[in-house]
Amino acid sequence: MSATLRRITLLSTVAIVAAWIAAPLAGAQSTPAPKNRVVIQVSDGETAKWNLALNNARNIQADLGAANVEIEIVAYGPGLGMLKRDSAVATRVDEALTSGVKVFACGNTMKAQKLTPPDMMASISYVEAGVVEIMQRQQQGWAYIRP
Amino acid sequence: MSATLRRITLLSTVAIVAAWIAAPLAGAQSTPAPKNRVVIQVSDGETAKWNLALNNARNIQADLGAANVEIEIVAYGPGLGMLKRDSAVATRVDEALTSGVKVFACGNTMKAQKLTPPDMMASISYVEAGVVEIMQRQQQGWAYIRP
Amino acid sequence: MSATLRRITLLSTVAIVAAWIAAPLAGAQSTPAPKNRVVIQVSDGETAKWNLALNNARNIQADLGAANVEIEIVAYGPGLGMLKRDSAVATRVDEALTSGVKVFACGNTMKAQKLTPPDMMASISYVEAGVVEIMQRQQQGWAYIRP
Repeated sequence: MSATLRRITLLSTVAIVAAWIAAPLAGAQSTPAPKNRVVIQVSDGETAKWNLALNNARNIQADLGAANVEIEIVAYGPGLGMLKRDSAVATRVDEALTSGVKVFACGNTMKAQKLTPPDMMASISYVEAGVVEIMQRQQQGWAYIRP
Repeated sequence: MSATLRRITLLSTVAIVAAWIAAPLAGAQSTPAPKNRVVIQVSDGETAKWNLALNNARNIQADLGAANVEIEIVAYGPGLGMLKRDSAVATRVDEALTSGVKVFACGNTMKAQKLTPPDMMASISYVEAGVVEIMQRQQQGWAYIRP
Repeated sequence: MSATLRRITLLSTVAIVAAWIAAPLAGAQSTPAPKNRVVIQVSDGETAKWNLALNNARNIQADLGAANVEIEIVAYGPGLGMLKRDSAVATRVDEALTSGVKVFACGNTMKAQKLTPPDMMASISYVEAGVVEIMQRQQQGWAYIRP
């Protein structure tokens, strides 16, 4: 083995090790930009606030394109009324669901108000604790809107 | 070429490759700490809330130094009244603008309320959708205050 | 020194340098997942909102385990009444403190309302500017809840 061959072997080894070390970094850099994601909190008992939250969702979809944004509405406390069967905004909540918005009722609030799913709109989803959902979404990089 | 010289050449090569790999990491570490940036949402129609939002901006500037923080106030929905020509807090909004706060009215709310710029304070700025501005600022690392 | 021994020496050197370079990356990867951290803002003067904020803190602890989450409640503006000696929710604030929640009153609001610590609950803590505390916690990665 000549000295030249040894240096080529050496450089190849260094290059392979370097590539192996650099790979995760390069991978991290080529990750696509995160999709727009936003969690909207509804914790007030006023119909005007429910409509404002629904306007917010609709305007975000109109501005960015519904396919380019993930939206969650989480209702808890006095805001839970927004998702009851007799809600004044039930039609608009259904429209939001159809457009791709996810809508969650807080299980803790339901227990406190002695409500069960038959009391609620049929098409919504549930989380155990609305406030934990909102907290964790932020930790996962979602923006937070509190209308 | 002696074995010793070869080892020195080898070690130099390794050191150069190591430095090249480590450079982006070191670069990331030497990036200056991000400037304080905060977006303040005004979506209520009460003068007390408008004053609270303006107090928040003023207190942030007083505590951190106006030069060390970027502040945006975004008014939408019932909060838009804060920025109309006849706003009860027009003088304070002008003071905030003078101090470096950026103030935006929501274009969607203006359309819904059939308002045009002549109805608004002369010195403010506009965004197409207030809620999208607030969402995107958070995605860019800005803090969010909803007074 | 034989060619084989030289290659072993070379590979060892590369391996040591590689390990040294990779160490910070591996260290970063093995850092434990960040603890749940959330700052809850109280800026309304209504007892119902104070109870809702306290419910939020309690539900987060119940869902995640009190030992697994850091919670701060920051009261400012009209929300400061929550922490006065005569607060309607003083007992519940003490329970929150006992459970590990940190509770801060805003020094700017106290000055504006001409209040001093003897006017406040004995067990709470203070920050100079409540809104700056909330802003900085978000910049440090804390989630933000505004009930």
